[in-house]
Amino acid sequence: MPETTLFTKTKTVSIGLDRPFTIIGERINPTGRKMLAAELAAGNLDRVRRDAIAQVEAGAHLLDVNAGIPLVDEPALLAECIKLVQSVVDVPICIDSSIPEALERGLEVYQGKALVNSVTGEDERLERILPLIKKYGAAVIGISNDETGISEDPDERFIIAKKIVERAIDHGISREDVIIDPLAMPIGAMASAGKSLLALVRRCHEELGVNTSCGASNISFGLPDRPALNAAFLAMAIAAGLTAAITNPIEPDIKSAIMATDVLLARDENCLAWIRAHRKAKADAGETQASARERRA
Amino acid sequence: MPETTLFTKTKTVSIGLDRPFTIIGERINPTGRKMLAAELAAGNLDRVRRDAIAQVEAGAHLLDVNAGIPLVDEPALLAECIKLVQSVVDVPICIDSSIPEALERGLEVYQGKALVNSVTGEDERLERILPLIKKYGAAVIGISNDETGISEDPDERFIIAKKIVERAIDHGISREDVIIDPLAMPIGAMASAGKSLLALVRRCHEELGVNTSCGASNISFGLPDRPALNAAFLAMAIAAGLTAAITNPIEPDIKSAIMATDVLLARDENCLAWIRAHRKAKADAGETQASARERRA
Repeated sequence: MPETTLFTKTKTVSIGLDRPFTIIGERINPTGRKMLAAELAAGNLDRVRRDAIAQVEAGAHLLDVNAGIPLVDEPALLAECIKLVQSVVDVPICIDSSIPEALERGLEVYQGKALVNSVTGEDERLERILPLIKKYGAAVIGISNDETGISEDPDERFIIAKKIVERAIDHGISREDVIIDPLAMPIGAMASAGKSLLALVRRCHEELGVNTSCGASNISFGLPDRPALNAAFLAMAIAAGLTAAITNPIEPDIKSAIMATDVLLARDENCLAWIRAHRKAKADAGETQASARERRA
Repeated sequence: MPETTLFTKTKTVSIGLDRPFTIIGERINPTGRKMLAAELAAGNLDRVRRDAIAQVEAGAHLLDVNAGIPLVDEPALLAECIKLVQSVVDVPICIDSSIPEALERGLEVYQGKALVNSVTGEDERLERILPLIKKYGAAVIGISNDETGISEDPDERFIIAKKIVERAIDHGISREDVIIDPLAMPIGAMASAGKSLLALVRRCHEELGVNTSCGASNISFGLPDRPALNAAFLAMAIAAGLTAAITNPIEPDIKSAIMATDVLLARDENCLAWIRAHRKAKADAGETQASARERRA
């Protein structure tokens, strides 16, 4: 089984099928978060600090950090966010940008072995980003699309995934350090999106011998009751071999579904994490009731 | 893809991978339900009637009917329950007993093509029950254990499943009319139970070409937050190819997880059932609020 190992100066996280499922906290990303975007643009990183702490407390093993805001100096802002996050929590970072210069600045300041999000299948992107991964000894998420867009055909997406893995190996990057993102598309727009993703996850695992990660929330875009769909989707994808997801551990349905899969796949020894979480939830509920009683008194 | 087709006088239900997941309502079973057991022993079938209607309203495609109470004439009681259920709802019945005479009486009175729950891998059971299945043109659930008990080893359980399918074919029963129950064991007692089950479901589908069904609630026995575990377990098993489960459609977590898998596997056209259920839940919540306002007024 491949294991992707990432670290900070003092802490190591391994991603793999024999490990508890890896949660990459998605919150430090201004896309779709107007308030965070405005604050970041004004140089205020308070929310980044709070989001880092809250996600790690909620069980994130890694944190995705993205500073993609129009008209800002993204490389400088991303580097600043990474330094801040590394100063307040001790988990590896997934350095997230579509701009190679920002990825490079992030890699320069990051202390440890980072995950880079992401490279796609275009030759130009591969030749720009893979040398950075090699130079900084990082790992990389490869997204299975290219200049032709995102294919509905899982076989075409598999070919792109294979190309990314092979090209990374050509660049001296080990197979373990490539994680494929098979792309969760909105099922409301593409009915086959779920089946395609499950098939791709299985093939990446069985035929390419690589780990997989995906942005799990996209699948339910535009549909009602998104947390319930996301939770079922994660359980299904994990059963097919998905090893990590960029998602929100603060969302109870998501967190509970992921912890349940660890129990069901014998990755939670003696179900201790599950039982402990249940006791904590009960204790927290008790505290809430007690403080409500105090307020009434 | 195999399709197991069951029917009443007027309604057909097909179980298979290309169909929405099949929910077999579990409630009409006195095991662990003291009140129901006492009422049935006294000849009072009111609760059976109510449970039949409520489960079908909640989305059950079939109803399991079990009348196993110590010291009663189980064949007569089971036959009575089946006649009652067929008089109030129009879904096929899963005739459930460990006593062959009860199964036979049930098959005699059932109108249509029933599912029989169950036969195990012992020669004596196979030779007693399979001729009944053939005689009445029914389908049967084969449970992958035998006189040696329930093995922890999924390979041993697969051998028993294979034996049941082959023996059924020897008796002139078609492969489509055998559904294997790979046995969900409590994960709290057997950490490998989830992985074994997923492996068996895949092999039954790929190597035996048969549908699978399981009692889904057993997996979480003894652990806290059972609905969350059961929901994740069902999503994982369905991703592996499980086609039916004996479960409780009235439990919202279970129902929601199953409906989500139908969306995610493109079995819910245009996500209509999902969207309709969401609207109904909203309307019901609105009604509850409105009637609360009326009560206050």
